[in-house]
Parts: sequence; structure tokens; C-alpha cells
Amino acid sequence: MSDIGEDELIARLTAGLRMGEQVICGPGDDCAVLKGSDTGWLDLLKTDVVVEGVHFCRDDDPEAVGWKAIARPLSDIAAMGGIPNAAVVTIVAPGDLEVAIVEGWYRGLQKAAESFAVSVVGGETSSTRSGGAMISLTMTGRVEKDRCVYRSGAKKGDAILVTGRLGGSLTSGRHLSFIPRLAEARWLTEHFKPHAMMDLSDGLAKDLPRMMKQSGIGYRLDESEVPCHEDVDLEAAVSEGEDFELLFTISQKTTPDLLSAWKKQFGGDLELTVIGKVTETTETPLIGGWDHFSKSSE
Amino acid sequence: MSDIGEDELIARLTAGLRMGEQVICGPGDDCAVLKGSDTGWLDLLKTDVVVEGVHFCRDDDPEAVGWKAIARPLSDIAAMGGIPNAAVVTIVAPGDLEVAIVEGWYRGLQKAAESFAVSVVGGETSSTRSGGAMISLTMTGRVEKDRCVYRSGAKKGDAILVTGRLGGSLTSGRHLSFIPRLAEARWLTEHFKPHAMMDLSDGLAKDLPRMMKQSGIGYRLDESEVPCHEDVDLEAAVSEGEDFELLFTISQKTTPDLLSAWKKQFGGDLELTVIGKVTETTETPLIGGWDHFSKSSE
Repeated sequence: MSDIGEDELIARLTAGLRMGEQVICGPGDDCAVLKGSDTGWLDLLKTDVVVEGVHFCRDDDPEAVGWKAIARPLSDIAAMGGIPNAAVVTIVAPGDLEVAIVEGWYRGLQKAAESFAVSVVGGETSSTRSGGAMISLTMTGRVEKDRCVYRSGAKKGDAILVTGRLGGSLTSGRHLSFIPRLAEARWLTEHFKPHAMMDLSDGLAKDLPRMMKQSGIGYRLDESEVPCHEDVDLEAAVSEGEDFELLFTISQKTTPDLLSAWKKQFGGDLELTVIGKVTETTETPLIGGWDHFSKSSE
Repeated sequence: MSDIGEDELIARLTAGLRMGEQVICGPGDDCAVLKGSDTGWLDLLKTDVVVEGVHFCRDDDPEAVGWKAIARPLSDIAAMGGIPNAAVVTIVAPGDLEVAIVEGWYRGLQKAAESFAVSVVGGETSSTRSGGAMISLTMTGRVEKDRCVYRSGAKKGDAILVTGRLGGSLTSGRHLSFIPRLAEARWLTEHFKPHAMMDLSDGLAKDLPRMMKQSGIGYRLDESEVPCHEDVDLEAAVSEGEDFELLFTISQKTTPDLLSAWKKQFGGDLELTVIGKVTETTETPLIGGWDHFSKSSE
């Protein structure tokens, strides 16, 4: 499977899948979007997995691993502008894994579930004879029809913005303790109208071109504006993954108001930075980023 | 993890998990049940995983493996009396796995999705450095409030019934091609009032005591009545898993009408058999069945 990239593999696999008339958005965005039975609301569905040796190590604090496992799909719910509802969790682990580790994962899950008002309503455990453990989370959520933000809505002339700072998530351990931007995304869609949004999981170099491709448009990244964490350089900030910040576009006209309202609302806690512009054709093509199946990233 | 059983592990892990007011039934039944936004309907949520070396082998026909992966949670939706809606799928596989195998899994998923009107709306793939592959499915569904059947509703004096025949599923390969009893369960709850229901995934010896424990009542199994597949004996039929037939209880008074209506509706295609009675205290305690973490079953 390493011979083809993750995007290519998913595109091949999902081509031709049956979609019922209730499906508004299938594979390809941060969450799947379905018609809700309540008019005015849409249902969100997202699945995500963390794998030992890829997304966490056995030495990592189990509570932090559990936190990360549930915070990742929460970040996807945030990226649609949604409110999380319920989650189910599947753990596959070698039979010799200490129960204390699994209990630690669950404590972390529970802590995050309480922090973000999600109900963990079911689970499944299975042993594996060999290999590493994995924790798979599926989350449901909902969002008002007029507040759902897709990746595909970026418009020519939009400003491109990012929350927080980027880079060094894996080396610093931030990937185990990040805060999904649920409150920020809800505030954003309550007061402003972002055109396109996603969460940064595979790195700006991979995720920005992805969003713009889905919007059928180009971009210009102002590299000097990219907000890097203190401990990393620009290359790391652009190409590394697991930042889980929000990347979105919004009308250039609204941007000054947004920046000043943001500052008032989130103070010094979380920055919001304009990093580029949506353009007819791409002016600063990006390469790199994190690919779960590419040999180079392993 | 092998030192404690699956039930004990899940009980430990899920104790104290936060449940919002929208949760009607959390861990412990075939599906989680949540208040729907549409009055009159409930939302169902189920996650299930198949693991290489435990639930399938790499030599198995990939299409059949994909069919099984999605048919299992469909069987759980059936066991609640529900209608499936959407599914998301996660595949974790070693980097050296042939793409053709993963494509085969997806063909099987798609075939079942089309047969049972489910939309596969999202997926996730990740590599693992070592160990076997696994396919995790999460499914949503819905059910009318007055047609949702829990495990906990069995009443003293009820007849205990099972659809189809039991045993030999793993040795015969039936575990890869079984039909989830969605149509039968919908017909059942449309015309009759089952008190408790579940699907037989871990074997009658394990699942029947489970259901009766959740109903807070006992049972008497008439072993001579257990419908065995031709290729297996009673012990296999009672103790083996992966039959995915429906096990339910219903008022003794209704049973003759049900049996004759069933015969008319499903003809010779699928048997329905009375195998016992719900009693104050258990008269024929069962032991055995399939435990994903017990050493004896590995």
C-alpha cells in the first residue's frame, strides 16, 4: 500500500460507493454531512484512528493518548462548524498489553468527553495476535444548515487564515494535548461567514492545496506570515502535521472586523493570522506534508 | 489483557463515562440508542471491528471479508429493530499489503451497502508498521420509539426464540457470507411485540445468559430444540459464535400466531424455533461461548 499515496488510495476506494439521497457530503471533507431529521440541522459523522508506532508510542502517557484519540475527531467536528454529540470507541490491542494502559486511555477519553460535552456511548475491544495497538473513534455531531462550512467554498479574493501557531507538534508532544477548536469555530460561524474551513492535520503544505483543489481555485501563501511555534522553523511549520488548528477562508472585506473581534474574544490565548489569499491559479505551489502511506514519512 | 474477560474489561472501562441527557442506552446493548431530533424516532449507533487472524485470514476472499465487516454492525442494527442509515470505515493495514486486497474489501463493503441500503460516507486509512490488518465499521441507524427492542425487556413466562440454525459458522465459512436479519426484524416488530432481542455473535451459551442478566431474570433452555446446522453437533451450536441470527423473547400467548405468520412470510427460507422459556431463576445454566480476550478461545 505504500506505493500509492493516501489521497490516491482513498479516491480509488471510495469511487462508486453508494450514496443515498440523505447524503449531502460523503468522503473528502472533515466530516460526512447528512440530512438531519430535524429541519434546519444537519448530522455530522466522522471516524478517526490512532495507531501505535504511527500516532503514539507505548511509552506515551496513556491519558494523553486517550485525549488525543478523541480530540482528533472533535477537531473535525469543529472544522465543519459543528457541535459534538456522541462517540463510540474501538480498541484493538495485543493480548499482552497491560490493562492499566487501556484504563489510562479511557481516563483520557473521559476527560476530553467531559471537557467538550460528548457522550461515549459504546465501545468494542478485540485482541490482535501480533502488532501494535490502535484506538478508533467515531463521532456524531450536528450543525445548523446555514452554519455548516465545507472545504469546497473558498472564493477568489478571500483571505486565508489560520488559528494558533504551527509546527513541532510531534517533537514537542503538543499532538497529545491539543485543544480542538470547537469554541472558536462556533464563535466564528455565529458572527462571521467563513467560506471554506478544515482542520490542519497533515500539515499546511498538504492541507492548503487540498482545500483549494476542492474549491476548484488557487492560492498564494505568504510564507513570511506563517505563525511558527517558537521551537520550529518555517519549513517545519509548513510541512509537519498534527497541528489541529483551523484553516479557513473568508471575504477580504470582512477580515479586519474579524481580526479585531477575534482579539477581543480570545485575547492573548489564541492568535489568528492572515497567511495568504485565494487566487485564480496557484502562485506558490506547496509540496510536502504528512502522508500516512508514503514511504518518505515512515 | 487476556487475564480478564471481554465483559469484565468493558464493564471496567465504561464505568463512569459521561452520558448526556440525550443518551437513552449507552454501552451494553447491540447498539447505543440516542434521542433523535425527530420526535417519534430514535438514533442508533454501533461500532464493530474485524481483525486479521481473529475474525478473518489474509487468504479469505477479500470481497467476503468486506461483506462480513459491514454485515456485522448491520446485524446489530437489526437486533434493535432498526433501519440502517450511514457507515464510516477505517482500515489499518501493514504497508506491504497489496492494494488489490483492500480494493476487494471495498467491493464487498459496497455490495452489502447496496443490498441493505446503507451509505458508506467516509473512511480513514492508516498504515501499521507491524501486525495484521483490521477493518473497523461504525454504523448509524434509526428506529421508531415504539419499535425499538432492547436486551433488557424479557419477561417471566416469555418464549425464547431463535431464527435460522446455529453452529459451525467459522468452519463452514458462513461467517463470511451471512445475511443480517434486517428484513426479518422489521417484519417482526411491525406485526408482533418482542420483549427483548439481540443478535447471536458470541454463541448462545454466552449471549443468552447475557440477555437474561440484562433483563434481571432467568431462563430454561430446551437443548433438544436448538436448531443445529447439519454439519455440527449440539455443543458446537450452543457454544460457537458468529451465527448472527436473532435471539428474542415474546409473550408465550403470541407465540403460536407468530410461528404461523412467520412460516407464511418467510416460507422455507428461514426457520424460527422456540428454544426455551424465560423463568424466575435460571434452570439450565450455560457456560462457554466466544470471548475475544479469553486465552481458551485463542
